[in-house]
Amino acid sequence: MLINIIFKLHMLYSIEIYSFPQLCRHEVVGIVTEVGSKVKKFTVGDKVGVGCLIGACHSCDDCSHDLENYCPKLILTYNDLYHDGTMTYGGYSDTMVANERYVIRIPDNMPLDKGAPLLCAGITVYSPLKYYGLNEPGMHIGIVGLGGLGHIAVKFAKAFGCKVTVISTSPAKKKEATEHLGADMFLVSRDEQQMQAAMGTMDGIIDTVSAIHPLLPLIGLLKSQGKLVMLGAPDRPLELPVFPLIMGRKTVGGSLTGGLKETQEMIDFAAKHDVKPDIEVISMDYINTAMERLAKGDVRYRFVIDIGNTLAASKP
Amino acid sequence: MLINIIFKLHMLYSIEIYSFPQLCRHEVVGIVTEVGSKVKKFTVGDKVGVGCLIGACHSCDDCSHDLENYCPKLILTYNDLYHDGTMTYGGYSDTMVANERYVIRIPDNMPLDKGAPLLCAGITVYSPLKYYGLNEPGMHIGIVGLGGLGHIAVKFAKAFGCKVTVISTSPAKKKEATEHLGADMFLVSRDEQQMQAAMGTMDGIIDTVSAIHPLLPLIGLLKSQGKLVMLGAPDRPLELPVFPLIMGRKTVGGSLTGGLKETQEMIDFAAKHDVKPDIEVISMDYINTAMERLAKGDVRYRFVIDIGNTLAASKP
Repeated sequence: MLINIIFKLHMLYSIEIYSFPQLCRHEVVGIVTEVGSKVKKFTVGDKVGVGCLIGACHSCDDCSHDLENYCPKLILTYNDLYHDGTMTYGGYSDTMVANERYVIRIPDNMPLDKGAPLLCAGITVYSPLKYYGLNEPGMHIGIVGLGGLGHIAVKFAKAFGCKVTVISTSPAKKKEATEHLGADMFLVSRDEQQMQAAMGTMDGIIDTVSAIHPLLPLIGLLKSQGKLVMLGAPDRPLELPVFPLIMGRKTVGGSLTGGLKETQEMIDFAAKHDVKPDIEVISMDYINTAMERLAKGDVRYRFVIDIGNTLAASKP
Repeated sequence: MLINIIFKLHMLYSIEIYSFPQLCRHEVVGIVTEVGSKVKKFTVGDKVGVGCLIGACHSCDDCSHDLENYCPKLILTYNDLYHDGTMTYGGYSDTMVANERYVIRIPDNMPLDKGAPLLCAGITVYSPLKYYGLNEPGMHIGIVGLGGLGHIAVKFAKAFGCKVTVISTSPAKKKEATEHLGADMFLVSRDEQQMQAAMGTMDGIIDTVSAIHPLLPLIGLLKSQGKLVMLGAPDRPLELPVFPLIMGRKTVGGSLTGGLKETQEMIDFAAKHDVKPDIEVISMDYINTAMERLAKGDVRYRFVIDIGNTLAASKP
């Protein structure tokens, strides 16, 4: 308990079913209610959150570079095992206990509910934009897929001062992308003429799509030295044409969330530059309906479940 | 002619057949015999060479960053067209005319014959080692394939102070790799036990193989943030497993020779650190035999054809 804090949960998002009887998720936010005697970073009353990670080894090369997210012994916030073998249960609960290293401070001007999705979706797009050097003002960045990750990637890339093009299979998303989210351009990936006209124009592409899809057209959109960053993991290998990589010294890379230090940096940057995800706050009893809507893609862009208030309201 | 130099050819290497009646190649070396009035870099008598490139646009973003090799209008040394439409004929000749921007100075202590393969094979492995940050002392670098590119990649990586492991399908190459070329370790890519033991140990891999081959085992050899650099272009797309890229923020990239400035830097570095390719100098009348030996992989590691002396000897 010495370095742990306890916080009362208000919000968390998304719904999946795990090892029975688990039904639990990450991107957890709340208010600190208790701190261990050696906790230094937080005091009771602080607005805090926990993202995807709740532990790591703290001795490997990755951990020593604040990259706990790549630690071979990383512990996920839910459906994983602590080093002592007990299970991690995520955030579907009224309180949560966490080691302070894994707790993020939610800035004053970032509402708790808007802050929640930043703790995974936010850092998942922010980290590769920085690591791959795709955060320079004036750069042209493509964002493939306009869902939970894609919509916040547009906002971060714009906040970095980049020119942003959303690439989507669905022409219907053009208005949303350009008018609501502020993208500069919109490309329909199935429109060969549009794609041809944009060849060789992008410094980097953030690809959030986890369905099987062709990489060749995306690699073609890149300038020399351009970088295609994959965030979605299709269940089968994709076809990689090597010749176009060689001809333009292009790269295809991956990225997995971010370390704790960078997650704090990300949410501070988001608060400063008014980068907030679009969310819909729901109560727990709406979950079945939310699941049906998720299956139809009918959410812009994250459900955030208000656990704390739902549980408080249900108490006699 | 103002910025061109003419040099007498001594050596060039390798044999391929192009647009009839072309039979011509790059990696050309010789001695300057004449210079145009505006030539600044060279004087008569200098040891010089020409690599893969003989021209580019000089106005694009790549050219302005000394990356003529990625210029969309780059002109290859042979089997290509100058901007005026005339053909480029490479180096199977007794003299050659070249724009001084595309001429490399061969350092005093680099023999002409050893310098020739550096002008393409050398820069092709040197450039990605630098660009992808795989030239730090103490790094662990894998080299896939031990041919013309691979053997010189081992030597450059060792000269950078890296630990080098050669990865090959052929156990018979172990002695050559470790005893002759100075690699630290040797991995047989078909030996699952050896490959498993080396998982997650490499900072980068230079893959020189152009046959279809699986990338998953190579990606597995990389540490987090590791980089797999493809130099050989298979004629069909390779299978790219995306999940392992994401889990370790790994990248797969390409690289195509290098710009002229970096080619000069490379050969100066090679001369300083005694990096020399292994070659076999032949006369023109040995070409048919050399072709047969090439087909059997029977050359360590480049044939260099002495055009100048062959032609001189054939004159009445």
